[in-house]
Amino acid sequence: MTYDAGFPGLDAFLQSCLAEDIGTGDITTNCCVDANSYSRGRFIAKADGVVCGLFVAARVFALVDARIVFSPRVEEGAAVKKGDIVAEIEGPSRGILTGERTALNLLQHLSGVATRTREAVEKVKGTKAQIVDTRKTTPGMRVLEKYAVRCGGGKNHRFGLSDGVLIKDNHIVAAGGITAAIEKVRKSAPHTLKIEVETESLEQVQEALDAGADIIMLDNMSVPMMAQAVKLIAGRALTEASGNMGQRDLREVAATGVDFISIGAITQSAQALDISLRFTAFDEKRD
Amino acid sequence: MTYDAGFPGLDAFLQSCLAEDIGTGDITTNCCVDANSYSRGRFIAKADGVVCGLFVAARVFALVDARIVFSPRVEEGAAVKKGDIVAEIEGPSRGILTGERTALNLLQHLSGVATRTREAVEKVKGTKAQIVDTRKTTPGMRVLEKYAVRCGGGKNHRFGLSDGVLIKDNHIVAAGGITAAIEKVRKSAPHTLKIEVETESLEQVQEALDAGADIIMLDNMSVPMMAQAVKLIAGRALTEASGNMGQRDLREVAATGVDFISIGAITQSAQALDISLRFTAFDEKRD
Amino acid sequence: MTYDAGFPGLDAFLQSCLAEDIGTGDITTNCCVDANSYSRGRFIAKADGVVCGLFVAARVFALVDARIVFSPRVEEGAAVKKGDIVAEIEGPSRGILTGERTALNLLQHLSGVATRTREAVEKVKGTKAQIVDTRKTTPGMRVLEKYAVRCGGGKNHRFGLSDGVLIKDNHIVAAGGITAAIEKVRKSAPHTLKIEVETESLEQVQEALDAGADIIMLDNMSVPMMAQAVKLIAGRALTEASGNMGQRDLREVAATGVDFISIGAITQSAQALDISLRFTAFDEKRD
Amino acid sequence: MTYDAGFPGLDAFLQSCLAEDIGTGDITTNCCVDANSYSRGRFIAKADGVVCGLFVAARVFALVDARIVFSPRVEEGAAVKKGDIVAEIEGPSRGILTGERTALNLLQHLSGVATRTREAVEKVKGTKAQIVDTRKTTPGMRVLEKYAVRCGGGKNHRFGLSDGVLIKDNHIVAAGGITAAIEKVRKSAPHTLKIEVETESLEQVQEALDAGADIIMLDNMSVPMMAQAVKLIAGRALTEASGNMGQRDLREVAATGVDFISIGAITQSAQALDISLRFTAFDEKRD
Amino acid sequence: MTYDAGFPGLDAFLQSCLAEDIGTGDITTNCCVDANSYSRGRFIAKADGVVCGLFVAARVFALVDARIVFSPRVEEGAAVKKGDIVAEIEGPSRGILTGERTALNLLQHLSGVATRTREAVEKVKGTKAQIVDTRKTTPGMRVLEKYAVRCGGGKNHRFGLSDGVLIKDNHIVAAGGITAAIEKVRKSAPHTLKIEVETESLEQVQEALDAGADIIMLDNMSVPMMAQAVKLIAGRALTEASGNMGQRDLREVAATGVDFISIGAITQSAQALDISLRFTAFDEKRD
Amino acid sequence: MTYDAGFPGLDAFLQSCLAEDIGTGDITTNCCVDANSYSRGRFIAKADGVVCGLFVAARVFALVDARIVFSPRVEEGAAVKKGDIVAEIEGPSRGILTGERTALNLLQHLSGVATRTREAVEKVKGTKAQIVDTRKTTPGMRVLEKYAVRCGGGKNHRFGLSDGVLIKDNHIVAAGGITAAIEKVRKSAPHTLKIEVETESLEQVQEALDAGADIIMLDNMSVPMMAQAVKLIAGRALTEASGNMGQRDLREVAATGVDFISIGAITQSAQALDISLRFTAFDEKRD
Repeated sequence: MTYDAGFPGLDAFLQSCLAEDIGTGDITTNCCVDANSYSRGRFIAKADGVVCGLFVAARVFALVDARIVFSPRVEEGAAVKKGDIVAEIEGPSRGILTGERTALNLLQHLSGVATRTREAVEKVKGTKAQIVDTRKTTPGMRVLEKYAVRCGGGKNHRFGLSDGVLIKDNHIVAAGGITAAIEKVRKSAPHTLKIEVETESLEQVQEALDAGADIIMLDNMSVPMMAQAVKLIAGRALTEASGNMGQRDLREVAATGVDFISIGAITQSAQALDISLRFTAFDEKRD
Repeated sequence: MTYDAGFPGLDAFLQSCLAEDIGTGDITTNCCVDANSYSRGRFIAKADGVVCGLFVAARVFALVDARIVFSPRVEEGAAVKKGDIVAEIEGPSRGILTGERTALNLLQHLSGVATRTREAVEKVKGTKAQIVDTRKTTPGMRVLEKYAVRCGGGKNHRFGLSDGVLIKDNHIVAAGGITAAIEKVRKSAPHTLKIEVETESLEQVQEALDAGADIIMLDNMSVPMMAQAVKLIAGRALTEASGNMGQRDLREVAATGVDFISIGAITQSAQALDISLRFTAFDEKRD
Repeated sequence: MTYDAGFPGLDAFLQSCLAEDIGTGDITTNCCVDANSYSRGRFIAKADGVVCGLFVAARVFALVDARIVFSPRVEEGAAVKKGDIVAEIEGPSRGILTGERTALNLLQHLSGVATRTREAVEKVKGTKAQIVDTRKTTPGMRVLEKYAVRCGGGKNHRFGLSDGVLIKDNHIVAAGGITAAIEKVRKSAPHTLKIEVETESLEQVQEALDAGADIIMLDNMSVPMMAQAVKLIAGRALTEASGNMGQRDLREVAATGVDFISIGAITQSAQALDISLRFTAFDEKRD
Repeated sequence: MTYDAGFPGLDAFLQSCLAEDIGTGDITTNCCVDANSYSRGRFIAKADGVVCGLFVAARVFALVDARIVFSPRVEEGAAVKKGDIVAEIEGPSRGILTGERTALNLLQHLSGVATRTREAVEKVKGTKAQIVDTRKTTPGMRVLEKYAVRCGGGKNHRFGLSDGVLIKDNHIVAAGGITAAIEKVRKSAPHTLKIEVETESLEQVQEALDAGADIIMLDNMSVPMMAQAVKLIAGRALTEASGNMGQRDLREVAATGVDFISIGAITQSAQALDISLRFTAFDEKRD
Repeated sequence: MTYDAGFPGLDAFLQSCLAEDIGTGDITTNCCVDANSYSRGRFIAKADGVVCGLFVAARVFALVDARIVFSPRVEEGAAVKKGDIVAEIEGPSRGILTGERTALNLLQHLSGVATRTREAVEKVKGTKAQIVDTRKTTPGMRVLEKYAVRCGGGKNHRFGLSDGVLIKDNHIVAAGGITAAIEKVRKSAPHTLKIEVETESLEQVQEALDAGADIIMLDNMSVPMMAQAVKLIAGRALTEASGNMGQRDLREVAATGVDFISIGAITQSAQALDISLRFTAFDEKRD
Repeated sequence: MTYDAGFPGLDAFLQSCLAEDIGTGDITTNCCVDANSYSRGRFIAKADGVVCGLFVAARVFALVDARIVFSPRVEEGAAVKKGDIVAEIEGPSRGILTGERTALNLLQHLSGVATRTREAVEKVKGTKAQIVDTRKTTPGMRVLEKYAVRCGGGKNHRFGLSDGVLIKDNHIVAAGGITAAIEKVRKSAPHTLKIEVETESLEQVQEALDAGADIIMLDNMSVPMMAQAVKLIAGRALTEASGNMGQRDLREVAATGVDFISIGAITQSAQALDISLRFTAFDEKRD
């Protein structure tokens, strides 16, 4: 359903997350738990939501101790109910305890983003509009959060400043107008990228359209203005509703006929989904 | 008021945040804006809250272009109202535009954590209880988030597994009881760390007390049980209320007389504080 | 003329280049040259070509010793003749000698790429065709080489696998045809990217066109077939001639009316442009 | 035949090459190709040349997906004809497609260097002269390029400024003459390194010889002067012909009796050897 | 007996140690030893001492060549006599020779620290005093040296400036006295850390005690003063003797009744324990 | 007198040393000392010795806070007496306190190595023998320790396995004898490196000489045998006495006429030179 979130640098990021938590060693665990103790446990959802990041949690534990086996019990992007088992784990007790918090912090956060995205997707169901994310992400976690958005049923906007063109108000001022800005970009930027322009009025929409914009962002417009803009554009460019969409009536916005609704809040202000680890067999000694 | 958040590795973290956003270059800005264009602008609060991370934002811009001057107009930890100016900026337009999103993502997130912390602190005002954080932080941002907690008026719990001892349920099982766990830790862990034990019943509280625990965590206890525990302990150990405190009545909890209330939600589920950049003079050419 | 080649990570790359050459220290220079010796010199073109990478050379020397002043005497992308001065340098002799080879290796290589690109650009002058690069770059130097292509007058194709979509023969097979592939991409990939399809026959061109491809690559086609394809497409998609273009008659290819001609050889097989450093005043002692 | 090119840091370099190409993910492949698709293919030489870097290509694919099996069908340094199979590959289709360009860029470049070296080696066959490389290498790839030189039948000069002593014209000026320079080096540099001196006249050759140079570089000399120098030295030091050797008649140079001929062009201006991947079985599903 | 020395970052540190020694390759070994040569050998103590770091040596060899099997023959922290076998090794000869020096440098150094610690521990045997380390460690090796201290029977003081509070003379001056300093720390530092105060007189001891210090360091005191201080404190705080303890009579110091004696010399000035590798079967060819 | 110890990677190493000590922040200092407090102090030798590493200490403080001014009062390599001022410092109190331990650990360790080297150099004064180091260095600090050896008056042997050839007993066995080993190396290794052979008998010395070794190591030989070897070699190769030289009578060894004496103990088992920081003006407030 979604394309892979694996990317060069994932292991390095997870190592830095582990280093941040473990520091020079997990003193409590190393003092209290034998090196040859093994355990088994379950990750259980403590609230309803969408699960995302199981492969990330699995990788965290593998980096702590390659002998730990983390087995997802649901698919990435699955909707779960409070009490559902999302994964099982077994392996050396020390490694499980040492990696637990880092794995849970990632799993809970990504599941929170997926859950929040799914809620927005559900709201616009049946309309043509698709939910997309923004660059309002948690520093350091953009690729993972954008993966969570896909798991939640959303689509991704550009990942950063180099894989998409978005001409904003200040770019327009600096370039000397929408037409001039689009021409400058068309002359210098890779032809493999679409050109998106942020507009705040119907005049700007018209100018962007005339200049050949591929995508027209309708920024902070009222619903009626947005509807007019969509009519004006008439399919000659993609349309994207934007601006505080986390607090707008998404159904109403979708009804204007826009192609995309971009929402910063799905990544920036998502609540963590509560998931916890319960041991089913703790501290069995092995030689 | 708070100790410094500067730490070895901050620049490297911010560079990685910038790399995540800028990738191989800010195409739109580089196409539309002249290299010798200069601008001035203001960062304005779009909602009430506590500002945190101004020095981080300043450093982000400095890493993008050392000629950018970012001048805070409020103190770290200041309460601001919607519409307040929190900082001013001037310098090369390209650098300001290229660094804007990364700086704002950090500033908004940290201010969100400080704001959420301040709310909790206000709730227990007048009681003896202090609000502390947990290890439920955003991977990669723990030191900064813990700094935001201090800016919000909270205190920090341990930063990770190596600068504090916290004996949890599974450690107790593995060690063979609270007394055994404390003894093992006292024997092997640095004597410079206090020993905290997680308890879920008055029997456990009593055992932890007898074994000489320095801090006793009262985990997921009802308010009456917590009050009893505090009475039982009678100042012979520090007390810390814990467990879903983000959804509990903090005033009631504080009234039990606990020393600390630890809340994961202040870091894990804080809403970003909306702050935006408005240019006051854009695109002035300089030679 | 070109957008900036500065990017997060440039300094780290240049530091690794310096480390590769300097290792544990420039023994010969440290033994023979006094620490307080200063010198001045000129970088001179030893052949005709296009200069590129002066700011990179300047940065290399700055990283070796911040007191070195490297002053370009021509613009990036300037055409120079054998014997022209391209830059002047002054500063501590040790640093200049220690950084010389690394700076020259970069400057000569990038100038070689720009020169080779300019030759191709000149060949298609007066036609509508633009020269673009490929992913056939020197590992580790892609961003710089693509900058050199722009300096030479070419345009950039995508920088890598994540900032552009290019559906090749194997993707088509795996997806079950061109139409299916385009649909899959449109469903899952960011809407900010254009979709390019590689075609080898007029049937494929037609299918790609019908499926709504934004760019159609005409791969390894004869000139007549290419001309037919361009006529067929009739401006409804961008066209890109590709396949061993380093050895084809570019003028003939351009005459077919294609929008872009992509050439791997301009980055992969460029000859270094000979540039050398001549001292004009060596080893003046300063206190 | 050659000593190993494996070195600490190789994996890190290859990871950075992959990151440069893959960025945040191979969108096209992830959209079009199933995660459980497997394929088999062959790497085929598209031109005559010397193959080098098969173990590097194998490692690239292993880093992308450890399940990919890359099997060389010729030895490192083997001469191949157009059409020869140089390696076979099988494994998950996604990983093969994602790693293909990075692996080929390395393999083609290193084979290009080996091929160019072999051509030079063949030219001086039967003489005493050996072909050696220089520090005119591609930044970031020195160790690999020097390995390719060995695969081509050449020998390596020093790898950088810290594993060899080469007293050049400016060092001579700074030290106050050849004799003084050699004395300074002998006093301070590790005694484990030979001392090489660059000379441009017979007087300099004589002085270097008298001062006890271990290696005398004959820089930019005419063939007759070089012959005289070799006669003068008479085996009391090693001799190395240098200076634009990529454009000289190597056979003529070798006939002077020099021990080594160092050629920057074999690394700096080598053409990539065309090698391509052809699938023999694509997209077989496995569960 | 001791808690684990494994920590995130260990592999990276060992890779950097290997890179420091191997550089661009082990020329001698690669020239002289066949790639398919296998060997077996023993690591033998050349002096009496305490062995520490076997797992580190094992990891070094594994990073050089995963096929090398390194088998400890004694426990970490074991006392060995001159001539004892401490480990056996078998695997590819090249890898063993290439990794030998790095592995031995680590093993000898850590064993030296453990040996020096054990000597101090033996001296205070039968008393209540425990030997602890300091921050006077070898830059880059603190976690490993502190592990060696534990192997030698000592305990660890804080690992750095962020996992312990130690109020020294200058902090006292800056804060305006011991009482003020303790109050400032109690207000701002994590409550999970004990507060230690450095004292040089009985007045300071009294003030620290009154202010509620958890640990009182008796710095550079005479034995009688130390004894008085211990009596004064009477178990209300932990006591730590410090200051040039590497040259003091530890038995006499311990007799004062202090809880801890911290000694910088055990890490800062330990002699390497001589351990060497002897091959028992060298250079057996395998296909 | 000595060549520079600056090398690419020094800053990264020092940053990692600081990170090791500072972790997430210097809690005590940040709690007790005002951010606008300034101080001045002196670094004083507490024992006689040779100072080395002042520029390293200066760099450490600069990395902590660029406003700190560290002013050496003696030259690198200077012999100091107990009580001598070696450097002065002034700047923000926090930075000085936070960087103090890391700077001192480096300064004391390097001065210890220089001191130990100087002692050996003094012992062989008047003879022809020069003291050289080995690869028995502290992991992570080789370049700095070898710099300290030069400061102490010694010379450097090779820095690692790639900048020198040393054929040891096992290489000889693997290659099939000394003659075969030298031939293999001469065929494949860079001609810029001398070839050193380890010998344990006069027969081996003779064989190494006949095969054209550049340096002959006389390993673990008795003084008379060493004298015979030197006589046998008669200047046709450099000679190096080796093997437990830290415990041999250096004067006696030097009297045999060897060129070099290599001593592992000068780097591996040097005592730190005691140097401490005394404040002369502490905690002056500035605005």
